[in-house]
Amino acid sequence: MVERLITKNPTKLLMVVLDGVGGLPVKDGKTELELARTPNLDALAKRSALGLHVPVDYGITPGSGPGHLGIFGYDPVRYEIGRGILEALGLGLEVRETDIAIRGNYASVERVNGKIVVKDRRAGRIPTEENRRITEKLSEAIKEIDGVRVFLAPGMEHRVAILLRFPEPLPEGSDHITDTDPQKEGLQPLIPTGKNESSERVARVLRKFTSMVEDVLKDEPKANYLLLRGFSQKPKIESFEERFGLKACAIAVYPMYRGLASLVGMNIIEFEGSSIGDQILALKDVWQEYDFFFMHVKKTDSYGEDGNYEGKVKVIEEFDRLLPKVLELKPDVLVMTGDHSTPSILKGHSWHPVPVLLYSPFVLGGTSERFTERECLKGELGIFPAKKLINLMLAHSLRLAKYGA
Amino acid sequence: MVERLITKNPTKLLMVVLDGVGGLPVKDGKTELELARTPNLDALAKRSALGLHVPVDYGITPGSGPGHLGIFGYDPVRYEIGRGILEALGLGLEVRETDIAIRGNYASVERVNGKIVVKDRRAGRIPTEENRRITEKLSEAIKEIDGVRVFLAPGMEHRVAILLRFPEPLPEGSDHITDTDPQKEGLQPLIPTGKNESSERVARVLRKFTSMVEDVLKDEPKANYLLLRGFSQKPKIESFEERFGLKACAIAVYPMYRGLASLVGMNIIEFEGSSIGDQILALKDVWQEYDFFFMHVKKTDSYGEDGNYEGKVKVIEEFDRLLPKVLELKPDVLVMTGDHSTPSILKGHSWHPVPVLLYSPFVLGGTSERFTERECLKGELGIFPAKKLINLMLAHSLRLAKYGA
Repeated sequence: MVERLITKNPTKLLMVVLDGVGGLPVKDGKTELELARTPNLDALAKRSALGLHVPVDYGITPGSGPGHLGIFGYDPVRYEIGRGILEALGLGLEVRETDIAIRGNYASVERVNGKIVVKDRRAGRIPTEENRRITEKLSEAIKEIDGVRVFLAPGMEHRVAILLRFPEPLPEGSDHITDTDPQKEGLQPLIPTGKNESSERVARVLRKFTSMVEDVLKDEPKANYLLLRGFSQKPKIESFEERFGLKACAIAVYPMYRGLASLVGMNIIEFEGSSIGDQILALKDVWQEYDFFFMHVKKTDSYGEDGNYEGKVKVIEEFDRLLPKVLELKPDVLVMTGDHSTPSILKGHSWHPVPVLLYSPFVLGGTSERFTERECLKGELGIFPAKKLINLMLAHSLRLAKYGA
Repeated sequence: MVERLITKNPTKLLMVVLDGVGGLPVKDGKTELELARTPNLDALAKRSALGLHVPVDYGITPGSGPGHLGIFGYDPVRYEIGRGILEALGLGLEVRETDIAIRGNYASVERVNGKIVVKDRRAGRIPTEENRRITEKLSEAIKEIDGVRVFLAPGMEHRVAILLRFPEPLPEGSDHITDTDPQKEGLQPLIPTGKNESSERVARVLRKFTSMVEDVLKDEPKANYLLLRGFSQKPKIESFEERFGLKACAIAVYPMYRGLASLVGMNIIEFEGSSIGDQILALKDVWQEYDFFFMHVKKTDSYGEDGNYEGKVKVIEEFDRLLPKVLELKPDVLVMTGDHSTPSILKGHSWHPVPVLLYSPFVLGGTSERFTERECLKGELGIFPAKKLINLMLAHSLRLAKYGA
């Protein structure tokens, strides 16, 4: 419904995502946000609209894909991002409508009575260095199969992303292919099979690919096989600009978040360095060229996942020190939030609602003292679905016409 | 779901709509509601359930139509009220299921090589007085076309509402007719065309109507043509009484709100005068005859739209002084809210959640000190969709049976 109310104006909208920023009490009954000394954020919070968003649904812990789709204004239940696509994006591969992305695991197999049997599904978790060497070898040997180009990117340990690029866009459902990982040692790898005509065409290429891989890796001591799963296509998503009338860019360091932003058609800004300060300089450089800016800060999540609450607190404090530089840009609407919570005590993503701060001239404000979970609960935005956040940003930049007379 | 839980009892439910009552800080960091001296409202707020409603959806600014449908318990996205219908209601025309309502603009045209060309789409914004004279003249000349009765009502400047009343109810889609306004000067007016059989039948009448108008107005110096748009039918809406089991009436001064209430089948009460005091007297007069009372106070919105916060504050204070008279009626459930917010600083409707006060013997209370945006945020009702407000009123009057065993 919002689509037909979109109007344009020269306002600038900035969304800063502190990945996994939400937390739980971890020391002295305080969360990471509560432990952090944040004088600049505190001052801003006092004159902003505060609340919390529910990323996917009550009690649902989102991965990075659904977490970001939600705050980008897309229903994360309707648009699913396949495991292969996310793996490929995370390893820096660009994905197109012509592509099938696959998550691969290097494995150890042996021949028993002429049959291939899986001995170790992860090839003894080979070192990442060895993975790189093997993936390089495969890339050299297999560049194309029947006109389909093949791209590989090494991940950590035994993990690898594979991309098949067909000459033309593939119909929906071309990724309906059975995994080759038998999920248990001692069994034979499965043969990839398509569930319909177009996916069977992909499966034919995969069968050739598998036997070529087998040939290239036959003398490897450990990683002499490649198990395939998570076949997926780029989801059909209307671009952010088509949908919200906002020319958008992403200022992110990590490939997965750059990839997620590019999935919805945001431009990915290249810049020197990787610190928060470098990101703000990049923001400044392109400030005149876009309407919407997505800036992604990763380390809050990384430390949360490690259970290192002090590290997470430090990243929040570092951002706070740099906040005045962000405010100098005078965004018409500034949102600060996370894609999900990552409480240090859980060492992982969680389902908890995520603090949101929205600054604009058209807020009530004065409800809360700080940008923390508990202070956000007092705010004027309440607890709302993440996918509505963009509507609120559009409204506060006066980019939505009245609905009905 | 609520429909099958409806029970009846002799309780009285009163909804007072202070149009556009919600606001934003406008002076000393205070909103209009916060600036107003409201001792009676304050006392009531302390023992009421408070919260805020979201009229249509997060970030969506509603017109008066969707704003009222929501608080009347109807999904404002599902039921759309056409521009022609709203115009007709606003100018005091009654609309029926047999009717097509149209928004008309008087325009200036000239003949160029035998063709009619639009010179001014608004006839130089003729004075309202001239509009009245011309509309009167048209009404006299065109009373009926092929058994279809024609009604006209003059609006402000060049605006006019037209109603075609057919002998029998029209099927849905009979209003799918192309506008005649070419949207640009120098072009020919368009010919109204139906997109299906029943709308083409309406279009035939409209083509005759247009040429009759042309004939009647041919000697007018400015307004010698009438451009037509916003063709619409009365939406198919289950009546308030059928849906909620409440015999309902409306005490409203302005035609549009009387019209909106009549759309859902409320009885419109006629009364002397137009002040809030007059409305309360009218309420008293019919108190024994109905279950549900909708009382609409317009001026909060009018002053908000003018950016006159002091005016808005005064209307709130005026209502506060008269509140004891309302309470003397001893409603079992009293709700005070707005159909949307109209912050004086925005000089128009806005998307901000709207304060709600619900008084009944069955509330928690004690959460808040006043009926203001910020105090309502602390209330027991939270932030909820407008269309749920009637459910809450029914529940608090013990008119809803238990769901499930």
